[in-house]
Amino acid sequence: MPIKESAPQLNRPEDPVRAGGARDEDTTIEDPVESDLPGQVQRTLTEHLESRLAECAELDGGFATAVQELSRFVLGGGKRIRPTFAWWGWRAAGGDATGPAAEAMLRAASSLELIQACALVHDDLIDESDTRRGHPTVHRKFARTHYEERWAGGAAQFGMSAAVLLGDLALAWADDMLHTAGLEPAALGRGLRPWRAMRTEMLAGQYLDVFSQVRGDETPEAALRVAELKSASYTIARPLQLGAEIAGADQRTLAALESFGHDIGVAFQLRDDLLGVFGDPAVTGKPAGDDLREGKRTLLIAEAVRAARAQGDDHAVAELRAVLGDPDVSAERIESARAQLVRLGAQQAVEERIAELTRGAHRTLEAAGFAEPAATRLGELAVAVTDRTR
Amino acid sequence: MPIKESAPQLNRPEDPVRAGGARDEDTTIEDPVESDLPGQVQRTLTEHLESRLAECAELDGGFATAVQELSRFVLGGGKRIRPTFAWWGWRAAGGDATGPAAEAMLRAASSLELIQACALVHDDLIDESDTRRGHPTVHRKFARTHYEERWAGGAAQFGMSAAVLLGDLALAWADDMLHTAGLEPAALGRGLRPWRAMRTEMLAGQYLDVFSQVRGDETPEAALRVAELKSASYTIARPLQLGAEIAGADQRTLAALESFGHDIGVAFQLRDDLLGVFGDPAVTGKPAGDDLREGKRTLLIAEAVRAARAQGDDHAVAELRAVLGDPDVSAERIESARAQLVRLGAQQAVEERIAELTRGAHRTLEAAGFAEPAATRLGELAVAVTDRTR
Repeated sequence: MPIKESAPQLNRPEDPVRAGGARDEDTTIEDPVESDLPGQVQRTLTEHLESRLAECAELDGGFATAVQELSRFVLGGGKRIRPTFAWWGWRAAGGDATGPAAEAMLRAASSLELIQACALVHDDLIDESDTRRGHPTVHRKFARTHYEERWAGGAAQFGMSAAVLLGDLALAWADDMLHTAGLEPAALGRGLRPWRAMRTEMLAGQYLDVFSQVRGDETPEAALRVAELKSASYTIARPLQLGAEIAGADQRTLAALESFGHDIGVAFQLRDDLLGVFGDPAVTGKPAGDDLREGKRTLLIAEAVRAARAQGDDHAVAELRAVLGDPDVSAERIESARAQLVRLGAQQAVEERIAELTRGAHRTLEAAGFAEPAATRLGELAVAVTDRTR
Repeated sequence: MPIKESAPQLNRPEDPVRAGGARDEDTTIEDPVESDLPGQVQRTLTEHLESRLAECAELDGGFATAVQELSRFVLGGGKRIRPTFAWWGWRAAGGDATGPAAEAMLRAASSLELIQACALVHDDLIDESDTRRGHPTVHRKFARTHYEERWAGGAAQFGMSAAVLLGDLALAWADDMLHTAGLEPAALGRGLRPWRAMRTEMLAGQYLDVFSQVRGDETPEAALRVAELKSASYTIARPLQLGAEIAGADQRTLAALESFGHDIGVAFQLRDDLLGVFGDPAVTGKPAGDDLREGKRTLLIAEAVRAARAQGDDHAVAELRAVLGDPDVSAERIESARAQLVRLGAQQAVEERIAELTRGAHRTLEAAGFAEPAATRLGELAVAVTDRTR
């Protein structure tokens, strides 16, 4: 259920793919925007939020204080994965990084981080999460202030109220930031098509994630549906399409980006699922087997249940079910469940699916023949999001 | 804290003001749209939601089922006060009800109901309300389904999750409906200015309402600030401005509508506050003195506290405070608190303020000299929202 942030480092200078030295000298990116895309996203978000905070301060000081928490949250971290894909979608479709439209595109791409802020703040509430990026989640933070200030009523209820309203504000401001980005009206009009679809898909994915968890839905179809909505569509394919539509992409380019985005988006989620169970706690920063404890219904679990059933191994199914969603499960039982996932071939099946999707994405990219540096960079991003350790 | 719906009946044929027979024959509205504005709003909302539901059904059946609850909520009631003011703002600024732009304007105005759906669904969650319009609130409805279906996890948590996500969806769809209303690009661009301000002001008002309640803020300034944000601005002035900007209003028209909207907006809220304490339960549909029991910090209460302090009457202050927010308070103590509010002159002060604001609004209207039927209709609306019994 949680929206993961275990995304790869997308900042070029620290990019492990680049450090690997596999890149061609000719595709070296010299443009200052592209050499530090996350830094540029941070700058545009800071500018936008500062101007909004000033408006809020004029409305009311108490409200502005609350909004500062939202601003800190947005500026406090995240890998800026969605703006990065939006940017490279724009570049793949011919957007000029040194041209007059680049700054507006950067702002449009950055507005995706405000949708993501809404998604995270509301998701933490839904998951009853205590921390995010090493800090208290927004609802916990406001609940703590309520408690410390000895205000009237329930602290948890106040924390929830503040998180609901600040998430709403982030969602509304995402629109505002897109619409005031400075895009040409026709470009904005085209961009609104994926923008509209994306928000509905994000919320559909969130709802289905909650829904399949309460229903204990163990089918691979349900797990894939959530992966397609939350990761493939919302996180990668729609941001790519947003950038491409703003650049005025033709149908062929849009189709290639959609296929590419879908494949690496699903692969991205599957990698996330594997890391949530098999990831090294020292690298992921989360306890071993965290997803098992949380009871996440992933494709990995669905594959394991399917294989166990096919083998008539009811014991394995029962053992997995007993571990899933048990917050107090022992390390031994986590270890045993992981061994079952390997033994049943589920881990291998998911790895193969990731490899297959990634190969498909690379083939799509080659056939599309995007101009450099977009082609190279998208290829690198495909590797970065699907082959990672955190 | 609750967002009130005790709005007047704005549908002309049942309009008590019209039934009073004070209207001039010359201003009779013959246009079919304007003779049943709430019905037209209902039609456009139905059309929009049907098309969105079809999209959701393609994404996932389970999600579509959830979204049907949102659709039922939006179509299930409400006085359509915000679209009504948006429409008349447009007409006051020269919009032609029989022209080609009328249908697009109607859709743009109706999109305000989707913002309001988000506000109500999230507000009911914040207030822990059980019912709305005689039906279970959205979070209670989903919690009940969870319980009846014996799903895993907590029913209340699931209900909260669904309400958060469906409220978000309504907020996103409000934008979508505005942007696909069919407005001319320049008209839409102008309309986005009040649209942006309005959503932030609505959320600021919601937050301050919660915030002043937990802090027990008893100052008239705090009560007025919430009234200005939630009622004056979000409910009346910004919708009027939205319509006027779409019509291409000049600065003089915009200023007149802003002044008019502010005055009747605050008066609307003050009337609401009086009805929440002194309203006839048989007419308002709510228990006598409901706002006292809920502990609402209104201007009425603030005036009473101020007057009691000025008279050195600590006993009256203590008595009011003891009643405010006590869900189990007796009918006798409610009656006694009401008598105090009268004795301290707070009721009278609020009535006078309403009268003064309404007079100011009518003066603004006369000076503005809007074309008919807008001038007459806005004058009637001013009376309808400020002088009512429910």
